Amino acid sequence: MEKKKIVVLPGDGIGPEIMTAGLKVLEAASNKFDFKYELDYQPFGGAGIDEAGDPLPEQTVIAAKAADAILLSAIGGPKWDDCPRRPEKGLLEIRSALGLFANIRPTTVEDIQIDRSPLKADRVQGTDFVIVRELTSGAYFGEPRSLADDKAIDTIFYSRAEIERIMKIGFDMAVKRSNHVTIVDKSNVLATSKLWRQIAEEVAQSYPTVTVDYRYVDAMAMAIIADPKQFDVVITPNLFGDILSDEAAEITGSIGQIPSVSAGSAGVNLYEPIHGSAPDIAGQGIANPISMIKTVAMMLDQSFDRSDMAQAIITAVNQVIEDQVVTADMGGEFGTAAVTDKIIEFINGGTAQWEQRSL
Amino acid sequence: MEKKKIVVLPGDGIGPEIMTAGLKVLEAASNKFDFKYELDYQPFGGAGIDEAGDPLPEQTVIAAKAADAILLSAIGGPKWDDCPRRPEKGLLEIRSALGLFANIRPTTVEDIQIDRSPLKADRVQGTDFVIVRELTSGAYFGEPRSLADDKAIDTIFYSRAEIERIMKIGFDMAVKRSNHVTIVDKSNVLATSKLWRQIAEEVAQSYPTVTVDYRYVDAMAMAIIADPKQFDVVITPNLFGDILSDEAAEITGSIGQIPSVSAGSAGVNLYEPIHGSAPDIAGQGIANPISMIKTVAMMLDQSFDRSDMAQAIITAVNQVIEDQVVTADMGGEFGTAAVTDKIIEFINGGTAQWEQRSL
Ligand SMILES: CC(C)[C@H](C(=O)O)[C@@H](O)C(=O)O
Ligand SMILES: CC(C)[C@H](C(=O)O)[C@@H](O)C(=O)O
Repeated sequence: MEKKKIVVLPGDGIGPEIMTAGLKVLEAASNKFDFKYELDYQPFGGAGIDEAGDPLPEQTVIAAKAADAILLSAIGGPKWDDCPRRPEKGLLEIRSALGLFANIRPTTVEDIQIDRSPLKADRVQGTDFVIVRELTSGAYFGEPRSLADDKAIDTIFYSRAEIERIMKIGFDMAVKRSNHVTIVDKSNVLATSKLWRQIAEEVAQSYPTVTVDYRYVDAMAMAIIADPKQFDVVITPNLFGDILSDEAAEITGSIGQIPSVSAGSAGVNLYEPIHGSAPDIAGQGIANPISMIKTVAMMLDQSFDRSDMAQAIITAVNQVIEDQVVTADMGGEFGTAAVTDKIIEFINGGTAQWEQRSL
Repeated sequence: MEKKKIVVLPGDGIGPEIMTAGLKVLEAASNKFDFKYELDYQPFGGAGIDEAGDPLPEQTVIAAKAADAILLSAIGGPKWDDCPRRPEKGLLEIRSALGLFANIRPTTVEDIQIDRSPLKADRVQGTDFVIVRELTSGAYFGEPRSLADDKAIDTIFYSRAEIERIMKIGFDMAVKRSNHVTIVDKSNVLATSKLWRQIAEEVAQSYPTVTVDYRYVDAMAMAIIADPKQFDVVITPNLFGDILSDEAAEITGSIGQIPSVSAGSAGVNLYEPIHGSAPDIAGQGIANPISMIKTVAMMLDQSFDRSDMAQAIITAVNQVIEDQVVTADMGGEFGTAAVTDKIIEFINGGTAQWEQRSL
């Protein structure tokens, strides 16, 4: 079996700590399930600026392009706020450089976590949808953009091809899930949203089993709180997706636990937790490692087709949550390392049990 | 005392019904408190298209400009979806024509309504903030915008003057409230947001008593759910304000009850409920009139300095809520007219009590 090449971008703030946790779990699961890989650490974000003079150093792009998958933890922090090219710039550019046009975020509320949601239990129970966010166009990349002392301009741009390909990702996903798609736009105001909706209607023709509804982004911001259970796959332009996917994460009450994947045409996916780099708690050994550990599981499942390993990791994670061996943000009193070790123990313990059963 | 001239835009769907309710309450309160006014009904929105061939007929603009205040209920509906100029276009253009650059929305969760919120009680109790949304620029009005079959473009534009004036509205409001301002932007990505934040920092210098914090719009979408109590005055660009103010409305669980005002330099304010025209329940006499009634109260208070009348109306509204004389969307079993009549009864009853006490 060929070794898989994983590019590792530990980033800033709590990034390196939780990356260490994620990689420890990857190692344990790989030993157990006989998965072979090699790691290629690269500077990125604030760390890219510090180590190589840019948030997205050339060497990192080259390595990323040659990788089978990319693991990123989190970037940014006040230290680099006044840099001409800030850490976030690296994130935008790596998306662009690798053609990572589809950001996919599961929004699932497990029964065991319902108490953690800010929403009342009956509203949120059973919530299970996926947000498909366009990631390499729209307001983030449109030209011209300019900033002067007396005025500023941004451009929102979408081409037909850009809209078609993200629609297909979303509709294909719906077919494998519950055959329901929600299209988000602001087509009562924006020209780009009119095109977005028009192409959605066209693409929908090829998916006769899928029911489609259309929401204005403002109505959607309400519906995510009022009745999140109704959604299955939500397809949204870049800027709206940024806002709505964070809103959706919040209703799970588990922002420290959510992984995401950015996928593109080139076949190299980038996996990352959805939260930020939390510089205020960096270096204290108290950051919640679960998001990064779930991110590793997502990578194993989606890039390497190892749902066995992913499942073992997720089961172990659910076990520590049930046992409340968790960090302070989840109401526990354990540190990053303790939670990670316990998860590894469960992964390994799982083996023992499995071996017993197979006797 | 001079008669106040109020332009009335009954609009579409449930618009005319709830406008009737609001005006009945205005009449009752005016009789009681000796307030003189005249009404000037004008076609607008879908009704504008039907009656005068355009969502914003010329005559409506002329009347609006000559008014002391404008009452709008709600516009739009599937009937006009294929019109070249749809009802919403009228709304955008009246904002522009009257220079209504500041949309102000209170987000208050009354103790008596906490059960109606989708949020857990401890999260939402005590929430009381105001969203100040820029309303005549940004992504809504920037040029160029174009729509072709293969691509579309919108422009986000802000000038310094546009940003400065909305900042001043927000900071002035904070001084009269709790001296706290939250600035919303996406300055890690958008040029217009960089200018937005930069000018906010400048304006803040003139308000030494006001504490300011800065939020990215995605983080803000989370914070509104996670911890809404922390906010006092929130200042946001047009498009973000559209999304966040609806999200904020939803956490109150009382979207059928929230008024808003759009204010401008010219001195004529436009008052409207924040909800839509709900064509599905139009004409059945079941629409919740409370939003429109509170909108009338807001107008009396802010345009006509009649806080006595506004207070009497709000007290009566709270009374029907307490007595559960409310429409189905609020868990009651009463129709629009019954709720309205009861509110009027309380307004009049209130007099009797007041007179008794003053004996
Ligand atoms: C850091 C920032 C540029 C980024 C974005 O807006 O896309 C982040 O919020 C995200 O959602 O990944
Ligand atoms: C109807 C629509 C154009 C409008 C807007 O987006 O401004 C509405 O959503 C609002 O918030 O008043």
